[in-house]
Amino acid sequence: MKSLGNLGVSAARIEDDIAALAAITDPDRPYTRRAFTPRHAEGRDYLRRRFEAAGLATTIDASGNLIGRRPGASPGRGTIMLGSHSDTVPDGGRFDGIAGVIAALEVARALHDGGIALDHDLEVVDFLAEEVSIFGVSCVGSRGMAGVRPPEWLSRRQGDQTLEQGIAEAGGDPHQVARREDVAAFLELHIEQGTVLEAAGLDIGVVTAITGIARIEIVLEGRADHAGTTPMGRRRDALVAAARLVTAIEAEATRLAAGPRYFAATVGEFEMLPNAANVVPSHVRLLIDARSQDAGDLADFSAAIEAHADALAEATQVSIASRRISDAGAVPMDAGVVSALDDAVGAIGATGCRLASGAGHDAAFLARISRAGMVFVPCRDGRSHAPEEWAETDAIALGAAVLLKTVQTLDTQGKGQADGSHSG
Amino acid sequence: MKSLGNLGVSAARIEDDIAALAAITDPDRPYTRRAFTPRHAEGRDYLRRRFEAAGLATTIDASGNLIGRRPGASPGRGTIMLGSHSDTVPDGGRFDGIAGVIAALEVARALHDGGIALDHDLEVVDFLAEEVSIFGVSCVGSRGMAGVRPPEWLSRRQGDQTLEQGIAEAGGDPHQVARREDVAAFLELHIEQGTVLEAAGLDIGVVTAITGIARIEIVLEGRADHAGTTPMGRRRDALVAAARLVTAIEAEATRLAAGPRYFAATVGEFEMLPNAANVVPSHVRLLIDARSQDAGDLADFSAAIEAHADALAEATQVSIASRRISDAGAVPMDAGVVSALDDAVGAIGATGCRLASGAGHDAAFLARISRAGMVFVPCRDGRSHAPEEWAETDAIALGAAVLLKTVQTLDTQGKGQADGSHSG
Repeated sequence: MKSLGNLGVSAARIEDDIAALAAITDPDRPYTRRAFTPRHAEGRDYLRRRFEAAGLATTIDASGNLIGRRPGASPGRGTIMLGSHSDTVPDGGRFDGIAGVIAALEVARALHDGGIALDHDLEVVDFLAEEVSIFGVSCVGSRGMAGVRPPEWLSRRQGDQTLEQGIAEAGGDPHQVARREDVAAFLELHIEQGTVLEAAGLDIGVVTAITGIARIEIVLEGRADHAGTTPMGRRRDALVAAARLVTAIEAEATRLAAGPRYFAATVGEFEMLPNAANVVPSHVRLLIDARSQDAGDLADFSAAIEAHADALAEATQVSIASRRISDAGAVPMDAGVVSALDDAVGAIGATGCRLASGAGHDAAFLARISRAGMVFVPCRDGRSHAPEEWAETDAIALGAAVLLKTVQTLDTQGKGQADGSHSG
Repeated sequence: MKSLGNLGVSAARIEDDIAALAAITDPDRPYTRRAFTPRHAEGRDYLRRRFEAAGLATTIDASGNLIGRRPGASPGRGTIMLGSHSDTVPDGGRFDGIAGVIAALEVARALHDGGIALDHDLEVVDFLAEEVSIFGVSCVGSRGMAGVRPPEWLSRRQGDQTLEQGIAEAGGDPHQVARREDVAAFLELHIEQGTVLEAAGLDIGVVTAITGIARIEIVLEGRADHAGTTPMGRRRDALVAAARLVTAIEAEATRLAAGPRYFAATVGEFEMLPNAANVVPSHVRLLIDARSQDAGDLADFSAAIEAHADALAEATQVSIASRRISDAGAVPMDAGVVSALDDAVGAIGATGCRLASGAGHDAAFLARISRAGMVFVPCRDGRSHAPEEWAETDAIALGAAVLLKTVQTLDTQGKGQADGSHSG
């Protein structure tokens, strides 16, 4: 890996902050610091102190996001924002989201240490409740900042607490519509949660797009015959039909993945009835999770699966019905920001590649209100959402160095330069 | 269907008895009359009265079986026994088991009406607890009569009742070893619980063998990667591997079923973990229910599945482990009895075929202590173990006529003629 030498960032500071936050967890379930729980507030207290120690003016916005601000030299120029999230899933890791908040903070510290003035204001953000929280929804803070948090979410309830109360208790103002209009660019560092970088031995992934996530539910109905007395060839076995469909789903996804754009599809949910040893299966429900960076690829996939299902239903006399449960479209990252990140990787002597993000991130919502970009750093074995999650401090520091360089490049660009041309 | 004309049996009596027993059910759950419950005792009271009305000396044996006896002309000649079971599964039908008890009773009534004396003693039997009962085991009474009821079963418990108590309350003597040595031949009529006879438009199925039932458990272990970020081709998806195995299981079973002997295999149980939309499946457990009338076919099948599993594990890097959970061997019916049943079908002018029984029956245990045979009658759509179960009264009566003729044929055969030769 590239030596951190004189890149301006401190791996030691990053390591200290990550370790300090790792200690703020439900003790029996490392690492658990869910949004809307006292542990999260404890983590926020730590972050607030560190933001303030870095000279940032620290507030909570109406959407419940923790923001540390460093004013720029040219008021009204706009804001360059960096950040991620400090909340975890239950039994999660120490790096997912946290690495991005700390890397953002480190950029602010490096600018300060280097006496580097920016024209734009700089903000470091810990977005509220990025992970699916106790209220069952995700990216609460970033949706709020982008002005697209659904109003009906406020009444979502867990026990005797509503999301409305949770946002208020986090210091937000849930009834204030809070779309930011001043964010010129947004950068997020995140662990890859995959194995592409590790397998290729690369330092940095420059994210080209956050894939859309479509969920397709398929229900197969056969007939619950006696498994002993019903001859082969006289059955309507829903599992046999489902098995052929699962094979087809994998084949179609692999076909699209071999093309130029990211594509993945997984049958993550699968239930069979009646699930008795001596009864031919009569019912299967399965759920496909399809990730695509292109609506055309998703349509291709859906049409191919429908065609397989129709042929299968005909051949097996098992009825097959599918429906699209949800469909969050792909979000491309800003082309100019992607270029600037690429250039920064090369400028600091690191190795990298472009890749799509198969997981959702706050950046997907920031892309609605700014020119957004993301960088990935390698994580061991791709493991995430588990205590085994691991990223090297030096890898995160290298990522912070890429962000630092890119911030400076973007600072020389103003509003109106959205075509990606940039000087320096 | 063959007219019942002058065959000696009464469809009307059969219909009355079946209707009367159908009325003895948990009222909310037709048709439910489980062994070791008061409803079953109520059904037994009805049967006892009908046995006695037919002139049978009625007792409960040590194994809890209800027996109606008609002494023969030659004491010590042996017993020709007919019967089935009156207990049902929950939400079961009116014919499974019951048709056989009533058909057996009708044979006794027809012999009486016709003034036909037999050399052998004749017994009509309602075996105790043929279906899987509240104690979780099946064929309790027939195993007892064959002397093979496992002693440890007596302590099986449901709530505050043991099987030992259940047998005693049914009138048996659970500690008496009660293997019968005097049964020359046993005949059981049962609904087919399949669709072969109905589809072929045939009256009677002469059962050649009761298939063995083998249960094979297979566990597949992959890796629970993030469904979004893990590229196709870098996964160890246990469901994708399991789907290919299910397809192979169906293909191998179909191959064997196309041969000269009955074969069926069903994946009746299937569970997948973690079963979350955005996680690649890491674990599948499936259970194969394999029915075969030949141990060689079962070995062929097992070996073929093992070979598929080995190749699949290699190709997918998903580990696959299988183990034989249980294996009840096939039970051939007596060749001479099968011939006699065939001849009887022809003699009364009915149509029939030979076929294997894919389901277990009391006859499987009676085959250990006698020359055993079974006949099937068609049931609508093969439906069984459900209130929709239906067999025509005339079909049952025709089956009773076949049994009646066969009893007379077998009566002319004595012990020592087990090679199947018979006069008349």
